[in-house]
Amino acid sequence: MLILGIDPGLETLGYGAVRVEGRTLRPHAYGVLRTDGGQRPEIRLLELYRSMRRLVEDLAPSEAVVERLYFGRNATSAMAVGEARGVALLVLAELGVPVFSYAPGEVKAAVTGYGRAPKEQVQEMVRRILGLTALPQPDDAADALAVAVAHAHRLASRLRTVGGTGR
Amino acid sequence: MLILGIDPGLETLGYGAVRVEGRTLRPHAYGVLRTDGGQRPEIRLLELYRSMRRLVEDLAPSEAVVERLYFGRNATSAMAVGEARGVALLVLAELGVPVFSYAPGEVKAAVTGYGRAPKEQVQEMVRRILGLTALPQPDDAADALAVAVAHAHRLASRLRTVGGTGR
Repeated sequence: MLILGIDPGLETLGYGAVRVEGRTLRPHAYGVLRTDGGQRPEIRLLELYRSMRRLVEDLAPSEAVVERLYFGRNATSAMAVGEARGVALLVLAELGVPVFSYAPGEVKAAVTGYGRAPKEQVQEMVRRILGLTALPQPDDAADALAVAVAHAHRLASRLRTVGGTGR
Repeated sequence: MLILGIDPGLETLGYGAVRVEGRTLRPHAYGVLRTDGGQRPEIRLLELYRSMRRLVEDLAPSEAVVERLYFGRNATSAMAVGEARGVALLVLAELGVPVFSYAPGEVKAAVTGYGRAPKEQVQEMVRRILGLTALPQPDDAADALAVAVAHAHRLASRLRTVGGTGR
């Protein structure tokens, strides 16, 4: 099973695909999609749409997880992130990939056990869980892997609950 | 020249197309695109993408104007609007329609001369300018017509400035 995590953005969209092998999670592919900051927003969204389609077609994930937006104080960048997220969701729907959506706190809780864990702790746990020697760069790729790991952990605990003997 | 105004939204996306004939503006088509509230967000974005493509292909506008988001207190609906706006911009870019983006205050100022005019005043001016006997319904369609009228007025004043003799 291949889980694709997405950290949406117009400047850079992070992606991280994680393969679930029994109880082990392995990194499959990660990186970022970038768009040309010199272009108009709608042209950048079209670039993002095309590169995202290629990515999802290439990876053919079983499920995708897209981080939910955090609306900070910068309304302009929040709007751009929302628009990019819409395009990412559209591509996943077009290609028939089931989509899950996690808030940042849910990702942190699923990876570290604590919903307000600092970013460094989340990244360090992701590094260990995936058996990587160094943290993936740039940050958006690491964040996307964290979302994928969070979803894998949630799935595993759901399976244990459903299939367990402890009733 | 046909100007397409868009008031973005996931529940309902308002559209209003206005034909510029010399100094006169005529309503060409207006209404809303709706998506099924019982569906998951990504499926609704795919519905919106498809109906928006059909609309823009049918109308073949010369230019499009998309209202810029107002980030109110409801972060969840702001996110949905941002995602829908991203999909609308994508469709316009895919179909090669030049896109303009106006903030709500810019629309009000271009239609009524006052950037903080109440909604009713904006709608009444739009009704008069387009020679409509009644206000278009629903509101999202009227809002989209207002955006198109605002852009037509801006274009006209720019042409007067460029071509005028008053230097």
